Formats: sequence, C-alpha cells, structure tokens
Amino acid sequence: MAAQRRIDLVLDSVKRLLRIGATGNLLNLLQKQHPADLAQIFGELQDKEKEAAFSLLAERNGRLAMEAVSELGPETGAALLATRSAEEIAKLAQEIPSDDAAALIDYLPEELSAAVLDLMRPKESGVVENLLEYDEQTAGRIMNPHVFALSEDMTVGEAITELQTNRDVEMVFYLYVVDERNHLVGVVSLRRLLLVSPETPLKRIMTADLMSARVDTDQEEVARQVASYNLLAIPVVDEENKLVGVITVDDIIDVIKDEATEDIYRLAGVAGDERAFTPAAESLRKRLPWLGINLGTAFLAAFVVSLFEGTIDRITALAVFMPIVAGMGGNAATQTLTVIVRGIALGELTWGNSRKALLKEAAVGVGNGVILGLAAAAVVWVTRGNPVLGLILCAAMIINMFVAATAGTLIPLGLRAANVDPALASSVFITTLTDVFGFFSFLGLATIFMRYLLPS
Amino acid sequence: MAAQRRIDLVLDSVKRLLRIGATGNLLNLLQKQHPADLAQIFGELQDKEKEAAFSLLAERNGRLAMEAVSELGPETGAALLATRSAEEIAKLAQEIPSDDAAALIDYLPEELSAAVLDLMRPKESGVVENLLEYDEQTAGRIMNPHVFALSEDMTVGEAITELQTNRDVEMVFYLYVVDERNHLVGVVSLRRLLLVSPETPLKRIMTADLMSARVDTDQEEVARQVASYNLLAIPVVDEENKLVGVITVDDIIDVIKDEATEDIYRLAGVAGDERAFTPAAESLRKRLPWLGINLGTAFLAAFVVSLFEGTIDRITALAVFMPIVAGMGGNAATQTLTVIVRGIALGELTWGNSRKALLKEAAVGVGNGVILGLAAAAVVWVTRGNPVLGLILCAAMIINMFVAATAGTLIPLGLRAANVDPALASSVFITTLTDVFGFFSFLGLATIFMRYLLPS
Repeated sequence: MAAQRRIDLVLDSVKRLLRIGATGNLLNLLQKQHPADLAQIFGELQDKEKEAAFSLLAERNGRLAMEAVSELGPETGAALLATRSAEEIAKLAQEIPSDDAAALIDYLPEELSAAVLDLMRPKESGVVENLLEYDEQTAGRIMNPHVFALSEDMTVGEAITELQTNRDVEMVFYLYVVDERNHLVGVVSLRRLLLVSPETPLKRIMTADLMSARVDTDQEEVARQVASYNLLAIPVVDEENKLVGVITVDDIIDVIKDEATEDIYRLAGVAGDERAFTPAAESLRKRLPWLGINLGTAFLAAFVVSLFEGTIDRITALAVFMPIVAGMGGNAATQTLTVIVRGIALGELTWGNSRKALLKEAAVGVGNGVILGLAAAAVVWVTRGNPVLGLILCAAMIINMFVAATAGTLIPLGLRAANVDPALASSVFITTLTDVFGFFSFLGLATIFMRYLLPS
Repeated sequence: MAAQRRIDLVLDSVKRLLRIGATGNLLNLLQKQHPADLAQIFGELQDKEKEAAFSLLAERNGRLAMEAVSELGPETGAALLATRSAEEIAKLAQEIPSDDAAALIDYLPEELSAAVLDLMRPKESGVVENLLEYDEQTAGRIMNPHVFALSEDMTVGEAITELQTNRDVEMVFYLYVVDERNHLVGVVSLRRLLLVSPETPLKRIMTADLMSARVDTDQEEVARQVASYNLLAIPVVDEENKLVGVITVDDIIDVIKDEATEDIYRLAGVAGDERAFTPAAESLRKRLPWLGINLGTAFLAAFVVSLFEGTIDRITALAVFMPIVAGMGGNAATQTLTVIVRGIALGELTWGNSRKALLKEAAVGVGNGVILGLAAAAVVWVTRGNPVLGLILCAAMIINMFVAATAGTLIPLGLRAANVDPALASSVFITTLTDVFGFFSFLGLATIFMRYLLPS
C-alpha cells in the first residue's frame, strides 16, 4: 500500500512536469525510479504523455527506459516502441538482455522487426535471432543465453576469481559446471564455495545429479519443475546436453502468471494473449469465433425448444420457467468445470483418481439440485397455485444438475486424456449440454404430464 | 514429460510393492524420492494405499514424510495427518519448518490441533502459535521465522564464519543486517561477500535502502512486490521495524498460484479454498449460497418473461428464440468480465485508464452484436419465413451485447473502487443483467411490433 501511494505521488508529479514542460526535473525524477515502478507509471499515462516521457528517458538513459518497457510486457512494450525508427529500436534493444529483446522484437510489426534485426550489431542480433528460432512457449525462447559456467577442472579458489572478474553477470546463485566440450556435468551453490578451502577441486564438491530443461521443453513444464522442486534457476541444455542458457525464477513467475491468465481466459472463451488494452478490432476478431460457436449451440438449444412449441402454445407458463432450468444447470456446470480444470492444471487430478472426483461431483450436483429444486417448486406453487408445475421444475433441475456435474467432470478429463487443453473447449460443450438437457427435461416432463398442467 | 514418466513408473512400483507387502523394498524406493515427487505419488494413491505408504515412511524418515505432506498443500496434507494420534502428529510436526507446520496444524480439526500444540516442545509450539496469531493471508502467516541475520558491527570475515557455523539455515542468498536491537538496517548479497576483503566492515558494503514487508501486509501485496522487483526473498519486520522473518520466492510462487486459483474460482462462484477432493458435503455447503443467489436472479429473469406472457401466448416462436438473446449476452459479458478482472488483478487496469477500456469494450460488444445478430436474423428468416422476427432478434442481440460490454467493464471497476474483490460478485450481477435485459429487449420489441409477427 505504501509503495502504491509513493507511485501515485510520482505519477502526479510526472504528469505535472510533462504539462509544464520541465524536462530537466522530469528526467531527474524518472531516473530515480525502479524499472518496475516506471512500467507502472507508463501504464497509467495517456498515450501522448507516455511517448513523451519515454522519449525523454530513452535519450538519456536507454537502458533504464528499455528495462521499463520490458516490464510492461512484450505486447504493450512493443506497441510503445513501434512508433520509433528501426535505427532507434535497434540501438535501444542492445541495452537489455537478449531474451528480453527477443520477446519485444517478436511483437513488432513484421517489417519493422526484420529491419531492427538487420541494424543490430551482428553478434547481438545473432543471439536474438537464435532465440526467436525456438518455438514460442518453450524453454529456449525464455532462457537467458548468457549463462555463467565454470570448468570442471577448476578449484574453488579459481572459481571465486572467475566470479570476481565477471561482475556484470546477474542473478548468480547456482554455478553450473561444464566439461571441456561444454556439456553440463554439475552444479555448485554459491554458498558451498564459502564453506570449503580454496584448493578443493570443483569436481569434488559439485552435485552431479541436477535438474535441467531441454531447449524444446514447454515453458509450463519448466515452471512446474522449478516450482515443485523450489529451484531458483534451472539450466537449459540442447539435445547433446550442452549448456546453452539459464532460466531464473523471476522468469518462471511470469510464466506462471501467463499460464494462469491463459486458463482463466480459455474458460471464458477469450484468447490467451488478449489484454485489457488490445485494440478493439483485434479483440473483436479474437472473440468472434467463440461467440459464433456459441450462437450455433444456442440455435441447437432453440431447436430443442421448438420441438415442444405445441406444449408451450397450450401452457405459456413453461416459457417463463424454462430459462431457470437451463441457467441453474449452466451455473452448476461452471462450478464443477472450474474446480476440475484447475485441479488438472495444478496436477492434483488425473485419470487415476478421477472416479473419486466424479462420484463427489455427482453427489454435490444431485444434492444442490434437490435443495434448490424444492425451493423453486415452492415458489412456483405459491405464485402459480400449481404444485405439479413446481414438481416438474424441481425434477428437471435435479436431472440437469446431475448432467452438469458428470459432464463437467468427464469432458475436461476426456479432453486432457486426448491431449487437448481441458480449459479450451470445455465451456462450449458444457453450456450447450446443460441448455439442451435443461429444456428437454423440463419441456419433456411437461408434455408427459400435460393434463395436470392445463387449467381444469 | 520425462520427469512425469519416471514418477508414473515409481507409482506403479509403489502400488505393486504395497500389494505384495514388500515393506523393505517399498521403504527403499520411497526414501529415494524428492518430497515433491512423493507428494504427487501420494496424490495418485487410493486412500488406504496412501495411509499405508505414509505410515511406513513416517516411522523411518519422519522428515521426508512430512516434507511430502507439506507439498500436498495444507488441506490435503492435514487430512492425511488427521487419522493419526496427537502425539504422533506433534512429533512429526517438529521435523519441518515452523511456517509449514503452522499451515498444516491450522487445517486439523480444532480439538486435534489444540492437543498437538500442547504436546509439541514448548519452544516449537510457541513459534507455531505465534505464526497462527497472524491473520490468514498476511506476510506474518507465511513467513519463515528462522531468519539468518548478521550484526551491523561485523566484518565480512566474521560474517563468513557465522555462515559456516550455521550450516542448517536454508536458502540463504540475501544476508540481512540488523542493529543491536534487531532493527533491520541493511542487506548484503552472498555474492558481494566474495568480492571484497575479509576485513571490510559489513556496514560499508551493505545496501541500506531495501524492501521489506510488514507482518500484517497482505500476501498478495507481498507477492506483487517480490514479482515486480524480481526479488528472491523479502525480509518481514514488525511494527517497530524489527526483523521477525523472511519470505522466500518459492513461497511467493505458491501465493501466486493460490491467488490465481482464487480469481478463477470467484469468477465461477466457487470458494477460494475448495479443491478437487474437498469432501462432497463441504463442497455442497460452499457452492449452495452462490447457486441460491443465482436461483433468485433466475426468478427475477423469469418475472421479466412473465410480463410478456400475453405476447408469448400469441406468438409461441418467441419462446424458442428468447434464450438466444440472453445466452449470447451472457457469453459476451463473461468475455469482457474476464479480461477486465484479470487486467485489474495484473495491475494493468485502474480507474485512471478505465475510460479507454470502456470505449473499447463497447465497440467490441456492438461490433460482435451486429455481425452475430445479422447471422441469427438470416437463420430465423430462412427457417421461419419471417424477416421481422429476425430483425427483432438482431436488434435485441445488439442491445444486449452493448449492455453486456458496458456492465462487464463498469461493475468490476466499481467493485474495485469500493474495495470489494471485483471477481467475487461480478458474474452474478452480470448474468442477471444480461438475462433481464435480453428478455426485456427481445420480448419488448416483439410486443411493440406484434402486428408484423402475427400470421396475416
């Protein structure tokens, strides 16, 4: 809270200094901020203010400006850069680590990103291009290729000297050990170096049994490894076990957040890479297909209703209550689906223990169906004076909430078994199912027991 | 994937060894596993197998058994412990760090947890009880109270000796520096110690400007700090700035996952602490209130439909198509809501920049409404031969998707401004709104233009 208040104060000052054009003071203020705070400040400025503040800072302190852009996330960051010339971007991109530069350049319009890569120093652009060759969402794409490694023939004393001469290597806590052909052979913690005498060979104190990720490992899998084993960093190797990079826990946190966002979005039918400020035309295009599928399924439900038009024609009250059955089924299904999909994502739920989950969800569905169905029946009896209509509503709700619970469990587990992301397709299937079953059971029962419903 | 395959193989062996009662071999196998892998294996075993495997391991290697239980998460972990005697639990709880023990004990049935605290060594139970006194979801609750601190009067050489004599302190990468009254005054990185001569006073090389969290800071706020500033750990201080604990990044990862789960759950009306294997009775009780509210709002929507019973009585086809309007509004609202709620959670969206988001969402809503409305109108025209019914459906869809977009943006932002979690209440409000508006606009327009709808 205190940190937030400080940022708000800085934000107010930035806006004021921009308005009165006090560039000297503004520059001083901006330069004192942490990149993460700058990113938050940029995020709250209007587009024009943001451009102005960024330009000012970029000219004086390109590194800080680019670190802030990096913290904005690749999409927003690239949008801020995209108004500048390829020359400027190329110069600025070389101020930050290659993995961060690659992420930003990847989001620039295609022509611009090609021009930027052309203009960067050959060595730097080579590294960035290499990173961009790995598939998205793999270890290779998010790793930092500048990894600090020690030779297995060194002593502890030599290792410390090596560390002292490489002061600009950042975030070193595990020291990776490689053989003469750069194969990853072990790891030593920084702390361990302090506990033994300088003559000790590294080989003697290193741990040879260490975890690593392959360049083509999915980033979600890497995140799971780092999180379950409480690692601070994980080395990345190529197919020959040669050390090519490192992924630190701060990058893993970004992956975990992104994957959580993706899960939340998929359940709601939103593309994983959409953000609050994605341009309207792009959002529209991204959301339309899912809404289109939903329209199709809505017509399917409408078709089921149309089968009973004769019944509704005679008892209009059915039209009043039928949305309740479908709606409650949909809500119950969403609850089940969410618990199951999240359980799969967190690794708690597998095919092996799915029977237990199914029985539980079915029991919860029927239980809630009975309680809420009776409550609904009572309301209908009181307001419409017809106990049979109430009982039909109750029965349809119980049936539909049972269907919701079983489908909400089995569909995501089935998708997972078929190697499809369970969050992706589940909600479309399930709301269709609860709509169709809801209308069918309610209107079907009403048709069967019609003679008790007609005014006598 | 390779790691998963290995665990599956181990799991098969564990099941087989349990079946044939080969306890010696089983114990050997279990003892070779990492706690995180053991937790996954326990998670896939049937209840009886899990009990048996845990008992066996707990007797021989209490520490590893408890580390695995800890990795299962407090709720599942406590359920596994709850069948044992208070004496056993008290003995086992002392094998793991106090913060992990506190989390587990907090989830035991009340009587059992009191008995366990009574039976623990006074010093240990005191530490656990202290932790349990902090509010849930605060820094104090999740911190590790065993924090390694150095006196500001030490030299670098003395600090290294101190570190060498305290070999059991885990995960040290920042060394916190305190004054004689234990006030936090600075931090030194482990690496920095290696780069200077042993006589250097700590005071000279420490960074005095460091981030810390107060014991009562919300864990989500702590996680945001650690994530934005890429920290590996954050010291926790009391109201007098005395150092009382440390939170490491691995705990922060758990917080981030839990908070993401909570957000996903709240959007679906599920309690934040429910898991796939929460007992059925408890799940039912937790989900019922939200479904109850939904039933109430469903009756509100039914009431709106009942206002138009006269119209439906004359044109039954309206009952067939009215769910489409409500359903599409609900789906569009869910998409908007999800993007906005997540944008707020990630700190990208604030009141300050909400106008831009509102305009964008309104444009997307109307755009999708026009496209899908026209498609729906075409279907109705073809299948029912009535262009006016199609146009009314189209108009109602556009109106409702506009309402969905504006409400989906403004309601979560409003709740946030009123300091209510935007994910908590939004979806109830919004589906009610889209149902009510959907039925009202469609049936209302149909009533106004009734003469074009009746067979001539």
